[in-house]
Amino acid sequence: MKSKFFNKATDIAKYIIRESVKDGDIVIDATAGNGNDTAFLADQVGVNGKVFAFDIQDMAIQNTRKKLQELNLINRVTLIEDGHENIDFYVKNEVNLIIFNLGYLPKGDHKIITKSETTIIALKKGLELLSKNGILLVVIYSGHEGGKEESIEVENLLSSLDQREYNTIKIDFINQKNKPPVLIGVEKKG
Amino acid sequence: MKSKFFNKATDIAKYIIRESVKDGDIVIDATAGNGNDTAFLADQVGVNGKVFAFDIQDMAIQNTRKKLQELNLINRVTLIEDGHENIDFYVKNEVNLIIFNLGYLPKGDHKIITKSETTIIALKKGLELLSKNGILLVVIYSGHEGGKEESIEVENLLSSLDQREYNTIKIDFINQKNKPPVLIGVEKKG
Repeated sequence: MKSKFFNKATDIAKYIIRESVKDGDIVIDATAGNGNDTAFLADQVGVNGKVFAFDIQDMAIQNTRKKLQELNLINRVTLIEDGHENIDFYVKNEVNLIIFNLGYLPKGDHKIITKSETTIIALKKGLELLSKNGILLVVIYSGHEGGKEESIEVENLLSSLDQREYNTIKIDFINQKNKPPVLIGVEKKG
Repeated sequence: MKSKFFNKATDIAKYIIRESVKDGDIVIDATAGNGNDTAFLADQVGVNGKVFAFDIQDMAIQNTRKKLQELNLINRVTLIEDGHENIDFYVKNEVNLIIFNLGYLPKGDHKIITKSETTIIALKKGLELLSKNGILLVVIYSGHEGGKEESIEVENLLSSLDQREYNTIKIDFINQKNKPPVLIGVEKKG
Protein backbone atom coordinates (compact mmCIF):
# COMPACT_ATOMS: atom_id res chain seq x y z
CA MET A 1 0.00 0.00 0.00
CA LYS A 2 1.82 3.10 -1.27
CA SER A 3 0.15 6.35 -0.34
CA LYS A 4 -0.30 9.29 -2.63
CA PHE A 5 -1.66 11.58 0.04
CA PHE A 6 1.09 12.26 2.47
CA ASN A 7 3.85 13.67 0.39
CA LYS A 8 4.89 17.26 -0.18
CA ALA A 9 2.46 20.11 -0.87
CA THR A 10 3.72 20.26 -4.45
CA ASP A 11 3.00 16.55 -4.93
CA ILE A 12 -0.52 16.86 -3.55
CA ALA A 13 -1.12 19.85 -5.83
CA LYS A 14 0.06 17.76 -8.78
CA TYR A 15 -2.19 14.93 -7.72
CA ILE A 16 -5.21 17.24 -7.56
CA ILE A 17 -4.32 18.61 -11.00
CA ARG A 18 -4.04 15.10 -12.44
CA GLU A 19 -7.42 14.13 -11.04
CA SER A 20 -9.16 17.39 -11.95
CA VAL A 21 -7.84 18.92 -15.17
CA LYS A 22 -9.37 17.45 -18.28
CA ASP A 23 -8.80 17.59 -22.00
CA GLY A 24 -9.83 20.98 -23.34
CA ASP A 25 -9.55 22.84 -20.04
CA ILE A 26 -8.22 26.37 -19.78
CA VAL A 27 -5.81 26.82 -16.87
CA ILE A 28 -3.32 29.32 -15.47
CA ASP A 29 0.13 28.82 -14.03
CA ALA A 30 0.52 32.10 -12.16
CA THR A 31 4.16 31.40 -11.31
CA ALA A 32 5.83 29.62 -14.21
CA GLY A 33 9.23 29.40 -12.49
CA ASN A 34 11.26 26.71 -14.20
CA GLY A 35 8.22 25.45 -16.05
CA ASN A 36 7.59 22.18 -14.26
CA ASP A 37 3.96 22.92 -13.40
CA THR A 38 3.43 24.62 -16.75
CA ALA A 39 4.58 21.52 -18.63
CA PHE A 40 2.49 19.25 -16.44
CA LEU A 41 -0.58 21.42 -17.01
CA ALA A 42 0.07 21.58 -20.76
CA ASP A 43 0.17 17.81 -20.82
CA GLN A 44 -3.11 17.54 -18.88
CA VAL A 45 -5.17 20.00 -20.96
CA GLY A 46 -4.44 18.12 -24.19
CA VAL A 47 -4.36 19.50 -27.72
CA ASN A 48 -7.68 21.26 -27.24
CA GLY A 49 -6.74 22.97 -24.00
CA LYS A 50 -4.82 26.10 -23.12
CA VAL A 51 -2.33 27.15 -20.45
CA PHE A 52 -1.54 30.77 -19.61
CA ALA A 53 1.78 30.93 -17.79
CA PHE A 54 2.99 34.07 -16.01
CA ASP A 55 6.34 35.04 -14.63
CA ILE A 56 7.92 38.39 -14.00
CA GLN A 57 11.47 37.09 -14.51
CA ASP A 58 12.97 36.77 -17.96
CA MET A 59 15.00 33.74 -16.87
CA ALA A 60 11.86 31.91 -15.75
CA ILE A 61 10.09 32.57 -19.05
CA GLN A 62 13.17 31.38 -20.98
CA ASN A 63 13.49 28.22 -18.90
CA THR A 64 9.81 27.47 -19.26
CA ARG A 65 9.85 28.04 -23.03
CA LYS A 66 12.86 25.74 -23.40
CA LYS A 67 11.19 22.99 -21.39
CA LEU A 68 7.94 23.26 -23.35
CA GLN A 69 9.77 23.18 -26.67
CA GLU A 70 11.69 20.07 -25.65
CA LEU A 71 8.42 18.39 -24.72
CA ASN A 72 6.67 19.63 -27.85
CA LEU A 73 4.01 21.32 -25.69
CA ILE A 74 4.71 24.96 -26.53
CA ASN A 75 1.66 25.26 -28.79
CA ARG A 76 -0.68 24.75 -25.86
CA VAL A 77 0.87 27.54 -23.78
CA THR A 78 0.81 31.33 -23.86
CA LEU A 79 3.86 32.61 -21.99
CA ILE A 80 3.45 36.03 -20.42
CA GLU A 81 6.40 37.95 -18.98
CA ASP A 82 4.49 40.13 -16.59
CA GLY A 83 3.42 40.08 -12.97
CA HIS A 84 0.43 37.84 -12.19
CA GLU A 85 -1.31 40.85 -10.67
CA ASN A 86 -2.07 41.78 -14.30
CA ILE A 87 -3.67 38.41 -15.00
CA ASP A 88 -7.00 39.94 -16.06
CA PHE A 89 -5.31 41.96 -18.80
CA TYR A 90 -4.30 38.76 -20.61
CA VAL A 91 -6.92 36.19 -19.66
CA LYS A 92 -10.52 36.90 -20.62
CA ASN A 93 -11.79 33.32 -20.44
CA GLU A 94 -13.23 31.49 -17.49
CA VAL A 95 -10.59 29.09 -16.26
CA ASN A 96 -10.83 25.62 -14.71
CA LEU A 97 -7.74 25.79 -12.55
CA ILE A 98 -5.11 28.25 -11.38
CA ILE A 99 -1.94 27.39 -9.51
CA PHE A 100 0.36 29.68 -7.55
CA ASN A 101 3.70 28.44 -6.34
CA LEU A 102 4.81 31.30 -4.09
CA GLY A 103 8.28 32.28 -2.88
CA TYR A 104 11.38 32.52 -5.04
CA LEU A 105 12.52 30.95 -8.28
CA PRO A 106 14.36 27.68 -7.51
CA LYS A 107 17.96 28.01 -8.71
CA GLY A 108 17.29 31.72 -9.32
CA ASP A 109 17.90 34.86 -7.30
CA HIS A 110 16.44 34.10 -3.86
CA LYS A 111 15.99 37.81 -3.22
CA ILE A 112 13.36 38.05 -5.93
CA ILE A 113 10.26 36.75 -4.19
CA THR A 114 6.54 36.95 -4.66
CA LYS A 115 5.22 39.71 -2.42
CA SER A 116 1.94 39.74 -0.57
CA GLU A 117 0.91 43.07 -2.09
CA THR A 118 0.85 41.72 -5.64
CA THR A 119 0.04 38.13 -4.65
CA ILE A 120 -3.20 39.23 -3.00
CA ILE A 121 -4.27 41.22 -6.07
CA ALA A 122 -3.48 38.25 -8.30
CA LEU A 123 -5.39 35.82 -6.07
CA LYS A 124 -8.47 38.03 -6.06
CA LYS A 125 -8.37 38.39 -9.83
CA GLY A 126 -7.75 34.66 -10.19
CA LEU A 127 -10.81 33.85 -8.07
CA GLU A 128 -12.89 36.08 -10.36
CA LEU A 129 -11.79 34.06 -13.38
CA LEU A 130 -12.66 30.65 -11.94
CA SER A 131 -15.42 28.67 -13.60
CA LYS A 132 -17.99 26.79 -11.53
CA ASN A 133 -16.18 23.89 -9.81
CA GLY A 134 -12.96 25.66 -10.78
CA ILE A 135 -9.99 25.18 -8.47
CA LEU A 136 -7.35 27.58 -7.18
CA LEU A 137 -4.23 26.00 -5.66
CA VAL A 138 -1.61 27.91 -3.70
CA VAL A 139 1.64 26.38 -2.49
CA ILE A 140 2.89 28.62 0.29
CA TYR A 141 6.40 28.82 1.72
CA SER A 142 7.02 30.62 4.97
CA GLY A 143 10.67 29.80 5.63
CA HIS A 144 12.29 32.62 3.61
CA GLU A 145 12.39 36.31 4.52
CA GLY A 146 9.01 37.85 3.81
CA GLY A 147 7.45 34.41 3.46
CA LYS A 148 5.77 34.40 6.84
CA GLU A 149 4.04 37.71 6.21
CA GLU A 150 2.88 36.59 2.79
CA SER A 151 1.58 33.25 4.10
CA ILE A 152 -0.49 34.99 6.77
CA GLU A 153 -2.02 37.43 4.30
CA VAL A 154 -2.82 34.71 1.79
CA GLU A 155 -4.43 32.54 4.45
CA ASN A 156 -6.42 35.50 5.78
CA LEU A 157 -7.79 36.19 2.33
CA LEU A 158 -8.67 32.61 1.44
CA SER A 159 -10.13 31.71 4.83
CA SER A 160 -12.47 34.71 4.63
CA LEU A 161 -14.10 33.63 1.36
CA ASP A 162 -17.86 33.25 1.59
CA GLN A 163 -18.61 29.59 2.34
CA ARG A 164 -21.75 29.79 0.21
CA GLU A 165 -19.57 30.41 -2.84
CA TYR A 166 -16.28 28.67 -2.09
CA ASN A 167 -14.78 25.76 -0.18
CA THR A 168 -11.31 26.45 1.15
CA ILE A 169 -9.10 23.70 2.50
CA LYS A 170 -5.66 23.92 4.02
CA ILE A 171 -3.27 20.98 4.00
CA ASP A 172 -0.54 21.25 6.54
CA PHE A 173 2.35 18.90 7.31
CA ILE A 174 2.17 19.13 11.05
CA ASN A 175 4.99 16.87 12.19
CA GLN A 176 7.74 18.38 10.01
CA LYS A 177 10.28 20.56 11.74
CA ASN A 178 11.57 22.64 8.83
CA LYS A 179 8.47 24.62 7.86
CA PRO A 180 7.59 22.69 4.72
CA PRO A 181 5.25 24.46 2.31
CA VAL A 182 1.50 24.20 2.94
CA LEU A 183 -1.18 23.86 0.31
CA ILE A 184 -4.35 25.90 0.27
CA GLY A 185 -7.01 24.86 -2.22
CA VAL A 186 -10.16 26.76 -3.10
CA GLU A 187 -13.05 25.34 -5.06
CA LYS A 188 -15.71 27.60 -6.50
CA LYS A 189 -19.05 25.96 -5.88
CA GLY A 190 -21.02 24.62 -8.82
CA MET B 1 -14.72 19.47 -13.61
CA LYS B 2 -16.15 18.04 -10.39
CA SER B 3 -13.77 18.04 -7.46
CA LYS B 4 -13.28 15.22 -5.04
CA PHE B 5 -10.96 17.13 -2.77
CA PHE B 6 -12.91 19.92 -1.19
CA ASN B 7 -15.74 18.17 0.53
CA LYS B 8 -16.19 17.15 4.12
CA ALA B 9 -13.48 15.49 6.22
CA THR B 10 -15.46 12.24 6.15
CA ASP B 11 -15.60 12.33 2.34
CA ILE B 12 -11.86 12.92 2.05
CA ALA B 13 -11.23 10.06 4.49
CA LYS B 14 -13.42 7.83 2.32
CA TYR B 15 -11.57 8.93 -0.78
CA ILE B 16 -8.22 8.08 0.81
CA ILE B 17 -9.59 4.68 1.86
CA ARG B 18 -10.85 3.99 -1.66
CA GLU B 19 -7.48 4.86 -3.16
CA SER B 20 -5.42 3.04 -0.53
CA VAL B 21 -7.11 -0.08 0.79
CA LYS B 22 -6.62 -3.12 -1.39
CA ASP B 23 -8.00 -6.60 -1.64
CA GLY B 24 -6.69 -8.71 1.22
CA ASP B 25 -5.84 -5.81 3.53
CA ILE B 26 -6.39 -5.94 7.27
CA VAL B 27 -7.95 -2.76 8.65
CA ILE B 28 -9.53 -1.38 11.81
CA ASP B 29 -12.59 0.78 12.30
CA ALA B 30 -11.89 2.08 15.80
CA THR B 31 -15.32 3.73 16.07
CA ALA B 32 -17.92 1.59 14.33
CA GLY B 33 -20.80 3.95 15.10
CA ASN B 34 -23.65 3.18 12.74
CA GLY B 35 -21.41 1.03 10.59
CA ASN B 36 -21.00 3.21 7.52
CA ASP B 37 -17.21 3.19 7.54
CA THR B 38 -17.15 -0.46 8.62
CA ALA B 39 -19.26 -1.47 5.64
CA PHE B 40 -17.20 0.65 3.28
CA LEU B 41 -13.99 -0.89 4.59
CA ALA B 42 -15.43 -4.41 4.38
CA ASP B 43 -16.26 -3.76 0.75
CA GLN B 44 -12.74 -2.49 0.03
CA VAL B 45 -10.80 -5.34 1.67
CA GLY B 46 -12.55 -7.95 -0.45
CA VAL B 47 -13.18 -11.59 0.44
CA ASN B 48 -9.56 -12.11 1.46
CA GLY B 49 -9.39 -9.10 3.76
CA LYS B 50 -10.44 -8.45 7.34
CA VAL B 51 -12.01 -5.59 9.28
CA PHE B 52 -11.89 -5.28 13.04
CA ALA B 53 -14.61 -2.89 14.19
CA PHE B 54 -14.76 -1.53 17.74
CA ASP B 55 -17.47 0.29 19.61
CA ILE B 56 -18.20 0.62 23.29
CA GLN B 57 -21.95 1.06 22.75
CA ASP B 58 -24.23 -1.92 22.30
CA MET B 59 -26.49 0.07 19.97
CA ALA B 60 -23.58 0.87 17.68
CA ILE B 61 -22.52 -2.77 17.46
CA GLN B 62 -26.11 -3.83 16.75
CA ASN B 63 -26.56 -1.17 14.04
CA THR B 64 -23.27 -2.11 12.47
CA ARG B 65 -24.06 -5.84 12.49
CA LYS B 66 -27.46 -5.19 10.90
CA LYS B 67 -25.92 -3.08 8.16
CA LEU B 68 -23.22 -5.67 7.44
CA GLN B 69 -25.77 -8.48 7.31
CA GLU B 70 -27.93 -6.58 4.85
CA LEU B 71 -24.91 -6.01 2.64
CA ASN B 72 -23.71 -9.59 3.03
CA LEU B 73 -20.37 -8.35 4.37
CA ILE B 74 -20.54 -9.67 7.91
CA ASN B 75 -18.09 -12.51 7.20
CA ARG B 76 -15.28 -10.06 6.60
CA VAL B 77 -15.76 -8.25 9.91
CA THR B 78 -14.99 -9.01 13.53
CA LEU B 79 -17.24 -6.85 15.71
CA ILE B 80 -15.84 -6.02 19.13
CA GLU B 81 -17.95 -4.42 21.84
CA ASP B 82 -15.16 -2.87 23.83
CA GLY B 83 -13.31 0.41 24.03
CA HIS B 84 -10.74 0.98 21.31
CA GLU B 85 -8.14 1.58 24.02
CA ASN B 86 -8.06 -2.23 24.26
CA ILE B 87 -7.35 -2.62 20.56
CA ASP B 88 -4.11 -4.55 21.13
CA PHE B 89 -5.95 -7.22 23.09
CA TYR B 90 -7.94 -8.21 19.98
CA VAL B 91 -5.71 -7.33 17.05
CA LYS B 92 -2.37 -9.08 16.79
CA ASN B 93 -1.80 -8.51 13.08
CA GLU B 94 -0.10 -5.62 11.37
CA VAL B 95 -2.81 -3.50 9.82
CA ASN B 96 -2.88 -1.44 6.64
CA LEU B 97 -5.32 1.23 7.79
CA ILE B 98 -7.08 2.42 10.93
CA ILE B 99 -9.84 5.00 11.06
CA PHE B 100 -11.15 6.92 14.07
CA ASN B 101 -14.31 8.98 13.79
CA LEU B 102 -14.32 10.83 17.10
CA GLY B 103 -17.16 12.50 18.99
CA TYR B 104 -20.58 10.99 19.63
CA LEU B 105 -22.70 8.36 17.91
CA PRO B 106 -24.89 10.05 15.27
CA LYS B 107 -28.54 9.56 16.24
CA GLY B 108 -27.33 8.15 19.59
CA ASP B 109 -26.86 9.67 23.03
CA HIS B 110 -24.83 12.83 22.45
CA LYS B 111 -23.56 12.68 26.00
CA ILE B 112 -21.62 9.50 25.28
CA ILE B 113 -18.50 10.82 23.56
CA THR B 114 -15.02 9.60 22.85
CA LYS B 115 -12.72 10.99 25.53
CA SER B 116 -9.17 12.14 25.05
CA GLU B 117 -7.90 9.88 27.82
CA THR B 118 -8.90 6.67 26.03
CA THR B 119 -8.59 8.13 22.52
CA ILE B 120 -4.91 8.90 23.08
CA ILE B 121 -4.20 5.37 24.34
CA ALA B 122 -6.03 3.91 21.34
CA LEU B 123 -4.17 6.13 18.88
CA LYS B 124 -0.80 5.14 20.34
CA LYS B 125 -1.68 1.46 20.16
CA GLY B 126 -3.06 1.92 16.65
CA LEU B 127 0.18 3.50 15.48
CA GLU B 128 2.07 0.50 16.85
CA LEU B 129 -0.05 -1.85 14.74
CA LEU B 130 0.46 -0.01 11.44
CA SER B 131 2.34 -1.79 8.69
CA LYS B 132 4.90 0.04 6.58
CA ASN B 133 3.02 2.57 4.44
CA GLY B 134 0.05 1.96 6.71
CA ILE B 135 -2.35 4.83 7.26
CA LEU B 136 -4.11 6.16 10.33
CA LEU B 137 -7.05 8.52 9.73
CA VAL B 138 -8.74 10.56 12.44
CA VAL B 139 -11.86 12.64 11.86
CA ILE B 140 -11.99 15.16 14.68
CA TYR B 141 -14.99 17.19 15.87
CA SER B 142 -14.49 20.12 18.18
CA GLY B 143 -17.99 21.63 18.30
CA HIS B 144 -19.45 19.48 21.10
CA GLU B 145 -18.63 19.69 24.80
CA GLY B 146 -15.26 18.07 25.43
CA GLY B 147 -14.51 18.06 21.70
CA LYS B 148 -12.16 21.01 21.77
CA GLU B 149 -10.00 19.46 24.50
CA GLU B 150 -9.90 16.14 22.69
CA SER B 151 -9.00 17.75 19.37
CA ILE B 152 -6.08 19.61 20.94
CA GLU B 153 -4.71 16.49 22.59
CA VAL B 154 -5.04 14.40 19.45
CA GLU B 155 -3.31 17.04 17.35
CA ASN B 156 -0.55 17.41 19.93
CA LEU B 157 0.10 13.69 19.83
CA LEU B 158 0.06 13.30 16.06
CA SER B 159 2.05 16.46 15.32
CA SER B 160 4.81 15.28 17.65
CA LEU B 161 5.42 12.00 15.79
CA ASP B 162 8.99 11.55 14.59
CA GLN B 163 9.18 12.80 10.99
CA ARG B 164 11.72 10.13 10.19
CA GLU B 165 9.07 7.48 10.88
CA TYR B 166 5.77 9.15 10.05
CA ASN B 167 4.22 11.81 7.83
CA THR B 168 1.34 13.63 9.46
CA ILE B 169 -0.99 15.88 7.51
CA LYS B 170 -3.89 17.96 8.71
CA ILE B 171 -6.73 18.94 6.41
CA ASP B 172 -8.70 21.87 7.66
CA PHE B 173 -11.75 23.59 6.17
CA ILE B 174 -10.69 27.12 6.86
CA ASN B 175 -13.57 29.19 5.49
CA GLN B 176 -16.38 27.33 7.27
CA LYS B 177 -18.03 29.09 10.18
CA ASN B 178 -19.52 26.13 12.05
CA LYS B 179 -16.39 24.27 13.11
CA PRO B 180 -16.61 21.42 10.63
CA PRO B 181 -14.57 18.32 11.48
CA VAL B 182 -10.92 18.25 10.47
CA LEU B 183 -9.02 15.25 9.16
CA ILE B 184 -5.61 14.23 10.41
CA GLY B 185 -3.84 11.51 8.46
CA VAL B 186 -0.65 9.70 9.45
CA GLU B 187 1.38 7.51 7.16
CA LYS B 188 4.02 5.19 8.55
CA LYS B 189 7.03 5.46 6.28
CA GLY B 190 8.02 2.49 4.13
